[in-house]
Amino acid sequence: MKLYTYWRSTASYRVRIALNLKGVTYAPVPVDLVKGTQRNADYAALNPSGLVPVLALDDGTVLTQSLAIIDWLEATHPEPPLLPTDAVQRARVLAAAHLIAMDVHPVNNLRVVQHLGTQFNATAEDKAAWMRHWMALGFNALQQMIDPATPFAFGDTPTLADICLVAQIYNARRWGLDLTPYPRLTAIDARARALPAFDMAGPDAQPDAPKTQGPTCH
Amino acid sequence: MKLYTYWRSTASYRVRIALNLKGVTYAPVPVDLVKGTQRNADYAALNPSGLVPVLALDDGTVLTQSLAIIDWLEATHPEPPLLPTDAVQRARVLAAAHLIAMDVHPVNNLRVVQHLGTQFNATAEDKAAWMRHWMALGFNALQQMIDPATPFAFGDTPTLADICLVAQIYNARRWGLDLTPYPRLTAIDARARALPAFDMAGPDAQPDAPKTQGPTCH
Repeated sequence: MKLYTYWRSTASYRVRIALNLKGVTYAPVPVDLVKGTQRNADYAALNPSGLVPVLALDDGTVLTQSLAIIDWLEATHPEPPLLPTDAVQRARVLAAAHLIAMDVHPVNNLRVVQHLGTQFNATAEDKAAWMRHWMALGFNALQQMIDPATPFAFGDTPTLADICLVAQIYNARRWGLDLTPYPRLTAIDARARALPAFDMAGPDAQPDAPKTQGPTCH
Repeated sequence: MKLYTYWRSTASYRVRIALNLKGVTYAPVPVDLVKGTQRNADYAALNPSGLVPVLALDDGTVLTQSLAIIDWLEATHPEPPLLPTDAVQRARVLAAAHLIAMDVHPVNNLRVVQHLGTQFNATAEDKAAWMRHWMALGFNALQQMIDPATPFAFGDTPTLADICLVAQIYNARRWGLDLTPYPRLTAIDARARALPAFDMAGPDAQPDAPKTQGPTCH
Protein backbone atom coordinates (compact mmCIF):
# COMPACT_ATOMS: atom_id res chain seq x y z
CA MET A 1 0.00 0.00 0.00
CA LYS A 2 1.00 3.62 -0.52
CA LEU A 3 0.86 6.41 2.06
CA TYR A 4 0.64 9.94 0.69
CA THR A 5 2.42 11.86 3.40
CA TYR A 6 4.28 15.04 4.29
CA TRP A 7 7.17 14.82 6.72
CA ARG A 8 5.93 17.57 9.06
CA SER A 9 2.20 16.80 8.80
CA THR A 10 0.81 15.93 12.22
CA ALA A 11 -1.94 13.75 10.72
CA SER A 12 0.54 11.87 8.47
CA TYR A 13 2.80 11.33 11.48
CA ARG A 14 -0.08 9.65 13.36
CA VAL A 15 -0.74 7.19 10.54
CA ARG A 16 2.97 6.43 10.10
CA ILE A 17 3.20 5.53 13.81
CA ALA A 18 0.09 3.31 13.61
CA LEU A 19 1.34 1.49 10.50
CA ASN A 20 4.70 0.89 12.18
CA LEU A 21 3.11 -0.32 15.43
CA LYS A 22 0.99 -2.78 13.43
CA GLY A 23 4.04 -3.92 11.44
CA VAL A 24 2.45 -2.93 8.12
CA THR A 25 4.88 -2.12 5.32
CA TYR A 26 3.99 0.82 3.06
CA ALA A 27 5.55 2.92 0.32
CA PRO A 28 5.65 6.62 1.25
CA VAL A 29 4.61 9.08 -1.47
CA PRO A 30 5.68 12.57 -0.40
CA VAL A 31 3.20 15.42 -0.97
CA ASP A 32 4.86 18.83 -0.57
CA LEU A 33 2.28 20.92 1.28
CA VAL A 34 4.47 24.01 1.25
CA LYS A 35 4.86 23.92 -2.55
CA GLY A 36 1.10 23.24 -2.90
CA THR A 37 1.38 19.78 -4.51
CA GLN A 38 -1.87 18.85 -2.70
CA ARG A 39 -3.74 21.26 -4.98
CA ASN A 40 -2.71 19.42 -8.19
CA ALA A 41 -5.57 17.80 -10.13
CA ASP A 42 -4.17 14.29 -9.61
CA TYR A 43 -4.12 14.72 -5.86
CA ALA A 44 -7.52 16.40 -5.75
CA ALA A 45 -8.94 13.37 -7.59
CA LEU A 46 -7.45 11.14 -4.89
CA ASN A 47 -8.55 13.30 -1.95
CA PRO A 48 -11.02 16.12 -2.67
CA SER A 49 -10.15 17.79 0.64
CA GLY A 50 -6.56 18.29 -0.53
CA LEU A 51 -5.16 17.18 2.81
CA VAL A 52 -2.71 14.48 3.81
CA PRO A 53 -2.50 11.63 4.60
CA VAL A 54 -4.15 9.32 2.09
CA LEU A 55 -3.72 5.55 2.29
CA ALA A 56 -4.10 3.86 -1.11
CA LEU A 57 -4.59 0.11 -0.80
CA ASP A 58 -3.29 -2.33 -3.40
CA ASP A 59 -6.83 -3.02 -4.68
CA GLY A 60 -7.33 0.67 -5.51
CA THR A 61 -9.30 1.57 -2.37
CA VAL A 62 -8.47 5.07 -1.19
CA LEU A 63 -8.79 5.96 2.50
CA THR A 64 -8.60 9.51 3.86
CA GLN A 65 -8.61 11.20 7.29
CA SER A 66 -5.93 10.00 9.71
CA LEU A 67 -8.24 8.63 12.41
CA ALA A 68 -10.50 6.91 9.87
CA ILE A 69 -7.41 5.27 8.35
CA ILE A 70 -6.28 4.12 11.78
CA ASP A 71 -9.80 2.77 12.46
CA TRP A 72 -9.52 0.67 9.28
CA LEU A 73 -6.06 -0.46 10.35
CA GLU A 74 -7.35 -1.46 13.79
CA ALA A 75 -10.13 -3.54 12.18
CA THR A 76 -7.91 -5.27 9.63
CA HIS A 77 -4.71 -5.60 11.69
CA PRO A 78 -5.94 -6.01 15.28
CA GLU A 79 -2.52 -6.67 16.87
CA PRO A 80 -1.27 -4.86 18.83
CA PRO A 81 -4.56 -3.14 19.72
CA LEU A 82 -4.53 0.66 19.74
CA LEU A 83 -7.86 0.91 21.57
CA PRO A 84 -9.25 -0.97 24.60
CA THR A 85 -12.13 -3.41 24.09
CA ASP A 86 -14.21 -2.13 27.04
CA ALA A 87 -16.64 0.50 25.70
CA VAL A 88 -16.05 3.08 28.46
CA GLN A 89 -12.25 2.70 28.39
CA ARG A 90 -12.34 2.90 24.62
CA ALA A 91 -14.37 6.11 24.79
CA ARG A 92 -11.87 7.59 27.27
CA VAL A 93 -8.93 6.87 24.94
CA LEU A 94 -10.87 8.21 21.96
CA ALA A 95 -11.80 11.35 23.90
CA ALA A 96 -8.14 12.06 24.67
CA ALA A 97 -7.18 11.41 21.06
CA HIS A 98 -10.04 13.58 19.79
CA LEU A 99 -9.14 16.38 22.18
CA ILE A 100 -5.87 16.65 20.25
CA ALA A 101 -7.19 15.70 16.81
CA MET A 102 -10.31 17.89 16.97
CA ASP A 103 -9.77 20.69 19.50
CA VAL A 104 -6.08 21.44 18.91
CA HIS A 105 -4.68 20.25 15.63
CA PRO A 106 -7.31 21.50 13.13
CA VAL A 107 -7.10 25.03 14.51
CA ASN A 108 -3.32 24.86 14.06
CA ASN A 109 -3.32 23.27 10.62
CA LEU A 110 -0.98 24.78 8.00
CA ARG A 111 -3.82 26.03 5.82
CA VAL A 112 -5.55 27.68 8.79
CA VAL A 113 -2.39 29.51 9.81
CA GLN A 114 -1.81 30.56 6.20
CA HIS A 115 -5.37 31.89 6.12
CA LEU A 116 -4.70 34.00 9.22
CA GLY A 117 -2.08 35.73 7.10
CA THR A 118 -4.45 36.16 4.15
CA GLN A 119 -7.47 37.36 6.11
CA PHE A 120 -5.89 39.18 9.06
CA ASN A 121 -2.35 40.00 7.84
CA ALA A 122 -1.06 37.90 10.72
CA THR A 123 2.71 38.15 11.21
CA ALA A 124 4.96 35.18 11.89
CA GLU A 125 4.83 36.05 15.60
CA ASP A 126 1.01 36.32 15.52
CA LYS A 127 0.85 32.87 13.95
CA ALA A 128 3.19 31.37 16.52
CA ALA A 129 1.14 32.92 19.35
CA TRP A 130 -2.04 31.47 17.79
CA MET A 131 -0.49 28.00 17.63
CA ARG A 132 0.76 28.12 21.20
CA HIS A 133 -2.58 29.38 22.55
CA TRP A 134 -4.53 26.34 21.31
CA MET A 135 -1.83 23.84 22.17
CA ALA A 136 -1.56 25.14 25.76
CA LEU A 137 -5.35 24.95 26.21
CA GLY A 138 -5.42 21.41 24.85
CA PHE A 139 -2.42 20.12 26.80
CA ASN A 140 -3.78 21.58 30.04
CA ALA A 141 -7.02 19.65 29.58
CA LEU A 142 -5.33 16.51 28.29
CA GLN A 143 -3.05 16.23 31.29
CA GLN A 144 -6.16 16.03 33.51
CA MET A 145 -7.90 13.46 31.31
CA ILE A 146 -5.27 10.74 31.02
CA ASP A 147 -4.21 8.24 33.66
CA PRO A 148 -1.92 9.90 36.21
CA ALA A 149 0.91 7.39 36.52
CA THR A 150 0.86 4.73 33.79
CA PRO A 151 3.77 4.33 31.35
CA PHE A 152 1.59 5.56 28.50
CA ALA A 153 -1.50 7.79 28.51
CA PHE A 154 -3.75 4.85 29.37
CA GLY A 155 -1.91 1.78 30.59
CA ASP A 156 1.24 -0.10 29.74
CA THR A 157 1.17 0.07 25.95
CA PRO A 158 0.66 2.87 23.42
CA THR A 159 -2.87 3.67 22.30
CA LEU A 160 -4.36 6.09 19.82
CA ALA A 161 -4.07 8.77 22.52
CA ASP A 162 -0.27 8.39 22.64
CA ILE A 163 -0.07 8.44 18.85
CA CYS A 164 -1.93 11.74 18.72
CA LEU A 165 0.06 13.13 21.65
CA VAL A 166 3.51 12.44 20.21
CA ALA A 167 2.66 14.03 16.86
CA GLN A 168 1.26 17.10 18.62
CA ILE A 169 4.23 17.45 20.97
CA TYR A 170 6.52 17.56 17.92
CA ASN A 171 4.43 20.44 16.63
CA ALA A 172 4.49 22.14 20.04
CA ARG A 173 8.31 22.06 20.09
CA ARG A 174 8.41 23.38 16.54
CA TRP A 175 6.28 26.39 17.51
CA GLY A 176 8.14 27.09 20.73
CA LEU A 177 5.49 26.14 23.29
CA ASP A 178 6.93 25.99 26.81
CA LEU A 179 6.36 22.34 27.76
CA THR A 180 7.45 22.59 31.40
CA PRO A 181 3.82 22.73 32.66
CA TYR A 182 3.20 19.30 31.08
CA PRO A 183 5.70 16.89 32.64
CA ARG A 184 3.30 13.94 32.36
CA LEU A 185 2.90 14.56 28.61
CA THR A 186 6.62 15.00 27.89
CA ALA A 187 7.44 11.85 29.90
CA ILE A 188 4.99 9.85 27.76
CA ASP A 189 6.37 11.46 24.61
CA ALA A 190 9.95 10.48 25.51
CA ARG A 191 8.92 6.93 26.40
CA ALA A 192 6.99 6.53 23.15
CA ARG A 193 9.72 7.96 20.95
CA ALA A 194 12.17 5.45 22.41
CA LEU A 195 10.15 2.76 20.59
CA PRO A 196 11.29 2.08 16.99
CA ALA A 197 7.70 2.37 15.64
CA PHE A 198 7.47 5.96 16.87
CA ASP A 199 11.11 6.82 16.10
CA MET A 200 10.92 5.66 12.47
CA ALA A 201 7.66 7.63 11.98
CA GLY A 202 9.21 10.90 13.14
CA PRO A 203 9.28 13.87 10.75
CA ASP A 204 13.07 14.03 10.53
CA ALA A 205 13.30 10.35 9.57
CA GLN A 206 11.09 10.80 6.49
CA PRO A 207 12.46 10.70 2.94
CA ASP A 208 11.04 14.17 2.18
CA ALA A 209 12.61 15.80 5.26
CA PRO A 210 15.29 18.38 4.42
CA LYS A 211 18.65 16.64 4.09
CA THR A 212 20.42 19.16 6.28
CA GLN A 213 18.76 17.52 9.29
CA GLY A 214 19.99 14.14 10.42
CA PRO A 215 17.51 11.26 10.25
CA THR A 216 17.25 10.78 14.00
CA CYS A 217 17.59 14.28 15.50
CA HIS A 218 14.15 14.91 16.97
CA MET B 1 -28.10 9.63 32.03
CA LYS B 2 -27.48 13.37 31.76
CA LEU B 3 -26.32 15.25 28.68
CA TYR B 4 -24.60 18.57 29.31
CA THR B 5 -25.54 20.45 26.20
CA TYR B 6 -25.95 23.88 24.60
CA TRP B 7 -28.78 24.37 22.13
CA ARG B 8 -26.61 25.80 19.33
CA SER B 9 -23.52 23.66 19.92
CA THR B 10 -22.77 21.60 16.82
CA ALA B 11 -21.12 18.85 18.84
CA SER B 12 -24.04 18.67 21.32
CA TYR B 13 -26.46 18.50 18.38
CA ARG B 14 -24.63 15.44 17.01
CA VAL B 15 -24.92 13.56 20.30
CA ARG B 16 -28.58 14.51 20.72
CA ILE B 17 -29.34 13.03 17.26
CA ALA B 18 -27.42 9.84 18.05
CA LEU B 19 -29.16 9.38 21.41
CA ASN B 20 -32.55 9.89 19.74
CA LEU B 21 -31.75 7.48 16.87
CA LYS B 22 -30.76 4.83 19.43
CA GLY B 23 -33.89 5.49 21.46
CA VAL B 24 -31.90 6.39 24.57
CA THR B 25 -33.66 8.68 27.04
CA TYR B 26 -31.54 11.37 28.69
CA ALA B 27 -31.95 14.44 30.86
CA PRO B 28 -30.56 17.58 29.21
CA VAL B 29 -28.46 19.89 31.42
CA PRO B 30 -28.02 23.21 29.61
CA VAL B 31 -24.57 24.84 29.70
CA ASP B 32 -24.68 28.45 28.55
CA LEU B 33 -21.55 28.85 26.42
CA VAL B 34 -22.26 32.51 25.73
CA LYS B 35 -22.47 33.35 29.44
CA GLY B 36 -19.33 31.26 30.08
CA THR B 37 -20.95 28.65 32.36
CA GLN B 38 -18.48 26.11 30.93
CA ARG B 39 -15.66 27.94 32.75
CA ASN B 40 -17.21 27.40 36.22
CA ALA B 41 -15.20 25.18 38.55
CA ASP B 42 -17.96 22.55 38.71
CA TYR B 43 -18.01 22.17 34.96
CA ALA B 44 -14.21 22.22 34.67
CA ALA B 45 -14.09 19.33 37.12
CA LEU B 46 -16.51 17.43 34.88
CA ASN B 47 -14.73 18.27 31.62
CA PRO B 48 -11.28 19.89 31.86
CA SER B 49 -11.52 21.07 28.26
CA GLY B 50 -14.53 23.22 29.15
CA LEU B 51 -16.41 22.15 26.03
CA VAL B 52 -19.81 20.57 25.49
CA PRO B 53 -21.21 17.97 25.28
CA VAL B 54 -20.57 15.75 28.28
CA LEU B 55 -22.54 12.55 28.83
CA ALA B 56 -22.75 11.58 32.52
CA LEU B 57 -23.85 7.98 33.00
CA ASP B 58 -25.93 6.89 35.97
CA ASP B 59 -22.94 5.06 37.52
CA GLY B 60 -20.93 8.32 37.60
CA THR B 61 -18.91 7.65 34.45
CA VAL B 62 -18.26 10.87 32.55
CA LEU B 63 -17.76 10.77 28.77
CA THR B 64 -16.50 13.72 26.72
CA GLN B 65 -15.96 14.51 23.02
CA SER B 66 -19.00 14.06 20.78
CA LEU B 67 -17.60 11.34 18.52
CA ALA B 68 -16.14 9.40 21.44
CA ILE B 69 -19.55 9.54 23.13
CA ILE B 70 -21.21 8.27 19.96
CA ASP B 71 -18.61 5.48 19.72
CA TRP B 72 -19.59 4.40 23.25
CA LEU B 73 -23.25 4.59 22.29
CA GLU B 74 -22.66 2.48 19.18
CA ALA B 75 -20.91 -0.18 21.29
CA THR B 76 -23.53 -0.28 24.06
CA HIS B 77 -26.67 0.33 21.96
CA PRO B 78 -25.88 -1.28 18.60
CA GLU B 79 -29.32 -0.77 17.01
CA PRO B 80 -29.80 0.95 14.66
CA PRO B 81 -26.14 0.93 13.58
CA LEU B 82 -24.60 4.31 12.80
CA LEU B 83 -21.55 2.78 11.13
CA PRO B 84 -21.20 -0.08 8.61
CA THR B 85 -19.55 -3.32 9.73
CA ASP B 86 -17.30 -3.66 6.65
CA ALA B 87 -13.94 -2.06 7.54
CA VAL B 88 -13.52 -0.09 4.30
CA GLN B 89 -17.12 1.16 4.27
CA ARG B 90 -16.80 2.08 7.92
CA ALA B 91 -13.62 4.04 7.20
CA ARG B 92 -15.39 5.89 4.36
CA VAL B 93 -18.25 6.94 6.65
CA LEU B 94 -15.80 7.94 9.38
CA ALA B 95 -13.74 9.94 6.87
CA ALA B 96 -16.82 11.93 5.82
CA ALA B 97 -17.79 12.48 9.45
CA HIS B 98 -14.23 13.49 10.37
CA LEU B 99 -14.00 15.85 7.42
CA ILE B 100 -16.76 17.84 9.11
CA ALA B 101 -15.81 17.15 12.71
CA MET B 102 -12.07 17.76 12.26
CA ASP B 103 -11.51 19.95 9.20
CA VAL B 104 -14.53 22.27 9.45
CA HIS B 105 -16.15 22.46 12.85
CA PRO B 106 -13.14 22.99 15.15
CA VAL B 107 -11.92 25.93 13.08
CA ASN B 108 -15.41 27.44 13.38
CA ASN B 109 -15.90 26.72 17.06
CA LEU B 110 -17.28 29.57 19.20
CA ARG B 111 -14.09 29.96 21.23
CA VAL B 112 -11.98 30.08 18.06
CA VAL B 113 -14.12 32.81 16.54
CA GLN B 114 -14.05 34.71 19.84
CA HIS B 115 -10.25 34.44 19.81
CA LEU B 116 -10.13 35.97 16.32
CA GLY B 117 -11.71 39.01 17.92
CA THR B 118 -9.25 39.01 20.82
CA GLN B 119 -6.09 38.44 18.81
CA PHE B 120 -6.89 40.11 15.47
CA ASN B 121 -9.71 42.55 16.32
CA ALA B 122 -11.90 40.62 13.89
CA THR B 123 -15.24 42.31 13.20
CA ALA B 124 -18.56 40.47 13.02
CA GLU B 125 -18.23 40.41 9.22
CA ASP B 126 -14.65 39.10 9.41
CA LYS B 127 -15.86 36.31 11.67
CA ALA B 128 -18.73 35.40 9.34
CA ALA B 129 -16.33 35.35 6.36
CA TRP B 130 -13.98 33.08 8.32
CA MET B 131 -16.84 30.68 9.12
CA ARG B 132 -18.07 30.56 5.54
CA HIS B 133 -14.57 30.03 4.12
CA TRP B 134 -14.02 26.78 6.03
CA MET B 135 -17.54 25.49 5.58
CA ALA B 136 -17.40 26.03 1.80
CA LEU B 137 -14.06 24.21 1.56
CA GLY B 138 -15.41 21.33 3.62
CA PHE B 139 -18.75 21.02 1.85
CA ASN B 140 -17.05 21.08 -1.58
CA ALA B 141 -14.89 18.13 -0.58
CA LEU B 142 -17.68 16.31 1.25
CA GLN B 143 -20.00 16.40 -1.74
CA GLN B 144 -17.35 14.48 -3.72
CA MET B 145 -16.74 11.93 -0.97
CA ILE B 146 -20.23 10.66 -0.24
CA ASP B 147 -22.37 8.34 -2.38
CA PRO B 148 -23.87 10.25 -5.31
CA ALA B 149 -27.49 9.12 -5.21
CA THR B 150 -28.43 7.29 -2.01
CA PRO B 151 -31.14 8.65 0.32
CA PHE B 152 -28.51 9.40 2.96
CA ALA B 153 -24.78 10.10 2.65
CA PHE B 154 -24.01 6.39 2.50
CA GLY B 155 -26.99 4.18 1.83
CA ASP B 156 -30.61 4.00 2.90
CA THR B 157 -30.30 4.89 6.58
CA PRO B 158 -28.56 7.67 8.51
CA THR B 159 -24.97 7.14 9.61
CA LEU B 160 -22.50 9.18 11.61
CA ALA B 161 -21.79 11.13 8.41
CA ASP B 162 -25.41 12.35 8.20
CA ILE B 163 -25.38 13.25 11.90
CA CYS B 164 -22.31 15.43 11.43
CA LEU B 165 -23.67 16.88 8.19
CA VAL B 166 -27.05 17.99 9.57
CA ALA B 167 -25.46 19.73 12.57
CA GLN B 168 -22.98 21.52 10.29
CA ILE B 169 -25.65 22.59 7.78
CA TYR B 170 -27.55 24.26 10.64
CA ASN B 171 -24.40 26.22 11.41
CA ALA B 172 -23.90 27.06 7.72
CA ARG B 173 -27.40 28.55 7.52
CA ARG B 174 -26.79 30.48 10.72
CA TRP B 175 -23.67 32.08 9.27
CA GLY B 176 -25.18 32.82 5.88
CA LEU B 177 -23.29 30.35 3.70
CA ASP B 178 -24.82 30.09 0.21
CA LEU B 179 -25.86 26.42 0.05
CA THR B 180 -26.91 26.35 -3.62
CA PRO B 181 -23.59 24.73 -4.71
CA TYR B 182 -24.38 21.75 -2.44
CA PRO B 183 -27.74 20.32 -3.59
CA ARG B 184 -26.76 16.77 -2.59
CA LEU B 185 -25.98 17.92 0.95
CA THR B 186 -29.14 19.98 1.41
CA ALA B 187 -31.28 17.12 0.06
CA ILE B 188 -29.80 14.78 2.66
CA ASP B 189 -30.24 17.41 5.35
CA ALA B 190 -33.94 17.84 4.51
CA ARG B 191 -34.52 14.08 4.41
CA ALA B 192 -32.79 13.59 7.75
CA ARG B 193 -34.59 16.45 9.49
CA ALA B 194 -37.92 14.92 8.47
CA LEU B 195 -37.10 12.09 10.89
CA PRO B 196 -38.25 12.69 14.50
CA ALA B 197 -34.83 11.72 15.90
CA PHE B 198 -33.19 14.56 13.99
CA ASP B 199 -36.07 17.00 14.40
CA MET B 200 -36.23 16.63 18.18
CA ALA B 201 -32.45 17.12 18.41
CA GLY B 202 -32.55 20.44 16.55
CA PRO B 203 -31.27 23.57 18.30
CA ASP B 204 -34.62 25.34 18.32
CA ALA B 205 -36.32 22.36 19.98
CA GLN B 206 -34.00 22.46 23.00
CA PRO B 207 -35.11 23.67 26.44
CA ASP B 208 -32.35 26.32 26.53
CA ALA B 209 -33.25 27.79 23.11
CA PRO B 210 -34.57 31.37 23.30
CA LYS B 211 -38.34 31.30 23.81
CA THR B 212 -39.00 33.81 21.03
CA GLN B 213 -38.33 31.06 18.55
CA GLY B 214 -40.89 28.32 18.10
CA PRO B 215 -39.78 24.80 18.98
CA THR B 216 -40.02 23.47 15.42
CA CYS B 217 -38.93 26.37 13.20
CA HIS B 218 -35.65 25.16 11.70
